Amino acid sequence: MAFNTAEETYLASQRRGRLATVAPDGTPQNKPVGFHHNSELGTIDIYGFGMESSAKFRNVKVHPDVSFVVDDVVGEGASGVRFLEIRGRAEATSPAVPPGEQVSGSFIRIHPRRIVSYNIHPDQPGFHARDVALEEAGQ
Amino acid sequence: MAFNTAEETYLASQRRGRLATVAPDGTPQNKPVGFHHNSELGTIDIYGFGMESSAKFRNVKVHPDVSFVVDDVVGEGASGVRFLEIRGRAEATSPAVPPGEQVSGSFIRIHPRRIVSYNIHPDQPGFHARDVALEEAGQ
Repeated sequence: MAFNTAEETYLASQRRGRLATVAPDGTPQNKPVGFHHNSELGTIDIYGFGMESSAKFRNVKVHPDVSFVVDDVVGEGASGVRFLEIRGRAEATSPAVPPGEQVSGSFIRIHPRRIVSYNIHPDQPGFHARDVALEEAGQ
Repeated sequence: MAFNTAEETYLASQRRGRLATVAPDGTPQNKPVGFHHNSELGTIDIYGFGMESSAKFRNVKVHPDVSFVVDDVVGEGASGVRFLEIRGRAEATSPAVPPGEQVSGSFIRIHPRRIVSYNIHPDQPGFHARDVALEEAGQ
C-alpha cells in the first residue's frame, strides 16, 4: 500500500490536515480539513460539511493535482516539527443519495503519488521523500 | 492595511501556518511554516532554516501565487474551527549577506490579494471573504 507503518501510525494519531488545491485560474487555495486514511485503498479521504458546494471540490474537478499536509510540534525549533505531505491525484466523488437523505456523502479521495515526510520515522528521523507506484496507490 | 483588527489579533495568537505553493509543473505543494505578520507593510513574511534551497522558495520564483492558511480548533465540530486563509502574490527575497555571515536571511513575503476567514471576527462569526486593494497591501 501507499503508506508504511510509521506513516500509518502518524496519520492515525492526527485529526486534521490542510488541503492545497489549484483553482481554475491556476492559483492555489488552502483549507483545514478532517481526513480519513482509507487503509483498504491506500487513499486519503476527505469529507466535510458542504463539501459538494466547496471551492476545493470544484477545483479538484478541474485540477486533480493536490497536496495534503499533516503536521504537529513535539519539541522546540525546527527539529521539533513533524510533517507528512501527500501529493497526489484527487477525485471529487458524489455517491448517489437515497431520496430524502440530507447528507450528500460527497468527498475528495487522494491517490498518493509522492510522499514527503519529516521526523515521522522513529528509526530514521529527518527528511524522506519517495514516489508511490500507481499500483501501490490502488490505481 | 491588508488586515483588520480581528485578523491581526488572530495572526498574533498563532505561531504556525501552512503555505501552499505551485511547482513549476503546475502541481501544488504544502508545508508547515513559521510566519511573521509584518504590520508595517501589511504582508506575511516567512522565514525558515534552509529557506533559500527549499522547493517553496524556488516555486514562488516561477509561480508567485500562493495560499497561506492559519487555523486552530476551539470547540467541537465544524463550528469550533477557526481559520484565516491569505491568498496573494509572493516574492522570494534574498538580502545581501555580509561576508562571513552564516544565515542568509532569505524569506518569502506574501502580499495579500484575497482574505478568507471563518470564525475569526468575534462580532461576526462565520465565513467572510474579501479582496484586498493593492494599495492596502503596500504595493
